[in-house]
Amino acid sequence: MQTQIEMTSRITPKMITKSAELTGRSIISVHDLDRAEMELVLREADCYEEYIKSKQKLRTLSGSILATLFFEASTRTRLSFESAMHRLGGSVISTPDGKQASSAVKGETISDTIRTVTGYADVIVQRHPAIGSAREAARAAQASGIPVINAGDGAGEHPTQALLDLYTIQKERGTLNGLNITLVGDLKHGRTVHSLLQALCLWDVNITLVSPDMLRMPVHMVAELTANGAKIHETDSLQQGARNADVVYMTRVQKERFETEDGYNAVKNSYVVDADFMHRHPNMTLMHPLPRVDEITPEVDAFENAAYFRQTQNGVYVRMAILALVLGQRIS
Amino acid sequence: MQTQIEMTSRITPKMITKSAELTGRSIISVHDLDRAEMELVLREADCYEEYIKSKQKLRTLSGSILATLFFEASTRTRLSFESAMHRLGGSVISTPDGKQASSAVKGETISDTIRTVTGYADVIVQRHPAIGSAREAARAAQASGIPVINAGDGAGEHPTQALLDLYTIQKERGTLNGLNITLVGDLKHGRTVHSLLQALCLWDVNITLVSPDMLRMPVHMVAELTANGAKIHETDSLQQGARNADVVYMTRVQKERFETEDGYNAVKNSYVVDADFMHRHPNMTLMHPLPRVDEITPEVDAFENAAYFRQTQNGVYVRMAILALVLGQRIS
Amino acid sequence: MQTQIEMTSRITPKMITKSAELTGRSIISVHDLDRAEMELVLREADCYEEYIKSKQKLRTLSGSILATLFFEASTRTRLSFESAMHRLGGSVISTPDGKQASSAVKGETISDTIRTVTGYADVIVQRHPAIGSAREAARAAQASGIPVINAGDGAGEHPTQALLDLYTIQKERGTLNGLNITLVGDLKHGRTVHSLLQALCLWDVNITLVSPDMLRMPVHMVAELTANGAKIHETDSLQQGARNADVVYMTRVQKERFETEDGYNAVKNSYVVDADFMHRHPNMTLMHPLPRVDEITPEVDAFENAAYFRQTQNGVYVRMAILALVLGQRIS
Repeated sequence: MQTQIEMTSRITPKMITKSAELTGRSIISVHDLDRAEMELVLREADCYEEYIKSKQKLRTLSGSILATLFFEASTRTRLSFESAMHRLGGSVISTPDGKQASSAVKGETISDTIRTVTGYADVIVQRHPAIGSAREAARAAQASGIPVINAGDGAGEHPTQALLDLYTIQKERGTLNGLNITLVGDLKHGRTVHSLLQALCLWDVNITLVSPDMLRMPVHMVAELTANGAKIHETDSLQQGARNADVVYMTRVQKERFETEDGYNAVKNSYVVDADFMHRHPNMTLMHPLPRVDEITPEVDAFENAAYFRQTQNGVYVRMAILALVLGQRIS
Repeated sequence: MQTQIEMTSRITPKMITKSAELTGRSIISVHDLDRAEMELVLREADCYEEYIKSKQKLRTLSGSILATLFFEASTRTRLSFESAMHRLGGSVISTPDGKQASSAVKGETISDTIRTVTGYADVIVQRHPAIGSAREAARAAQASGIPVINAGDGAGEHPTQALLDLYTIQKERGTLNGLNITLVGDLKHGRTVHSLLQALCLWDVNITLVSPDMLRMPVHMVAELTANGAKIHETDSLQQGARNADVVYMTRVQKERFETEDGYNAVKNSYVVDADFMHRHPNMTLMHPLPRVDEITPEVDAFENAAYFRQTQNGVYVRMAILALVLGQRIS
Repeated sequence: MQTQIEMTSRITPKMITKSAELTGRSIISVHDLDRAEMELVLREADCYEEYIKSKQKLRTLSGSILATLFFEASTRTRLSFESAMHRLGGSVISTPDGKQASSAVKGETISDTIRTVTGYADVIVQRHPAIGSAREAARAAQASGIPVINAGDGAGEHPTQALLDLYTIQKERGTLNGLNITLVGDLKHGRTVHSLLQALCLWDVNITLVSPDMLRMPVHMVAELTANGAKIHETDSLQQGARNADVVYMTRVQKERFETEDGYNAVKNSYVVDADFMHRHPNMTLMHPLPRVDEITPEVDAFENAAYFRQTQNGVYVRMAILALVLGQRIS
């Protein structure tokens, strides 16, 4: 395990040097956390889940303010973070649809907006359509000591999604180590699966990537991870990829990625999880970042091992952990 | 009175069988409550009004989260619910204008959205333009035990509006029984008056319906209520309909319902409450769900028996009662 | 000083007669406060700054609700007020982008909307594009006793911005009296500088106005203030106007105010603060209401006497003071 960390740490050398203490830290990429820090987040999340499920009220962040700045709408992610903040007893200020944010319209830079909001809040969650914008925000906030959490920056990263995915796998399977995990769908454009793959490779897992040839995981990412010891296989067949899977992680394939209608339909029809599929894989855990459209049929919802609604709920516990930790609070 | 309940209960047989305990119950239609349950809501609302007016702080729902999902904007209704939740010490997460909700845009079903939000909140208030969408939401939430309150589903129902109307009549007149109540305006399309009429008929009231012929209350609804013992009269004359009224409930007539400009103007000019009208009916209580446009002139606001601003304020007390009850809290 | 107040009070005779007690008072214009009341606000703000900076939690307005009604988006101002309310332990309901407010769309008057919201909240902050709309709102709220704070009414006033500007000057320079203060940019259209100029003239200050001829401060305003003893000079040269300035207050010059591109560019290029300017004026405090675009270059941010980000943060303390005072709470 230690070996695993060191190997992967070659990708981003800063990883290994950080302490497990997250106070005041911005979280822009999964690379901003090492494995010990991720494990801390997962442990804290587990405690919060217990608190919430036993209907206990928390006042951990009472008096603190979260600003959710969404320069691009994302109902699910925004509500999840806001729910987490309220569950911790904190308050929220928000620009729910920042495309219409007056300052941005008037030509203000992200940096100026963030420096302003650091005067209004104790922690900032930002979603922005431009890749790199989250890192820019974190830099602007640095002088104030206010942490910035990246809730998606275009085709960039979405680290809290990766953390809630890890948490879900651990909860559903009991461990992360030794699992066969299959990622399915558009692996080229999806920031979710990019962040998740890199995070998973900090553990001892066997990864299978299932995608049509034109939507494969970026070659350099696979090469780099493999060079560092990761076990990654690729196929374009869902049937083959799911054979020994402990976890199948479905993602949506978007029509607009295809040049022809036929190309789209071929993929759309082959990458579908339905009741038959579930019956053939009774011990497999099915995940999806949601929203799903056609790739998982509604009848699948009734299967006990369809975990995607638990997965989205886990987002609240994981975000509670992250918000509390960057604001200097831990409970485990 | 008991007779009245039994008769009306033939319309929706489930009514009479319910207990007065609302914990965990979704409220989609006035039919989801029997008369005893409505009376419980009114009693609780009365207590909350006293608390708020004496400036007492409540922590009844401290630690609980309300999600207001408005797939169609409705400032008044949304703010009223959110105010109610804050008055009870609770927190709120919101999609203020769900038309732009990112998940819906991506093709997610109401059912999936609701199942997700049940992981973020303890109670959900939904407004949606499609009739039946509220029932669909309640079904999706059922497994989680999270209650859904319908805040309007297109031309469907708006049960909390009916409840605040009942509360206002009772507060203004001292009782609901034995009153002459006149509903005026567009009785065909208005979900407000549909819900209200059905709720009123659980009490011993005399109803007069005033509308132009083309905007009459749906015939089947009147027939059904009458068959169950309700006393309902219809006319197209406001003058006649208001003659012995204890309560006149005005609603807006929308221009787009008419085929000709003349048809609209005739109605618009005949269904207007002004100072003259108020002087002629000094003992009548005037109500309106708001917003009003031309159907009540501004000079009427100064009359003591113009109750519509008190009516909108009553919405907060009634919604406090409903939110607290479905979350298992009562104070009376 | 006393003389100064009396003189200025000729402009709006009501000023001198008010008590220093702000409970229940609407604040629509800087003229709604006399100098003693402004000083009270500044003292209170100073206490709140200390509380917040020492990480103390306040419950001053616990149980109270602020409604932020923004009929025109203004992220900065809205978030600043909402942050202030949360810092005081209060709750917030909001229409973040009131252009889409359903009631307004349906033809409801400001007056009706406000009378409704007085039933939902304890204090209202309104931004509206129409001049005079804030006074209209305050009138509508009067019967309820709910105070209305003007957060900008078109080309009208923005009194809390003036107060936070005063607060910033006092914090940065130690006093307001005896200072040379230079206002720069579009002095014709900017409500910010109109409110600020009138507030500043309640103290013993020397004002220099720097603007292109076509964007001069309205003549009647300068004449009236001068007649009442204010010391005001005008120039179109930033270099000249900044010579002995203790404070330079920059504002944005908008392209759409100019008839020709050349006219705009001439102004745009001459009214720019850059590192050179800062080196030439090491003892001057630089302010800006933000957002800034080109009129202050990013390199200026690093100068200690560039005060604009502290200025925007001061808005929270000043708005805490105002919200608490109009709701009957003071701490100093």
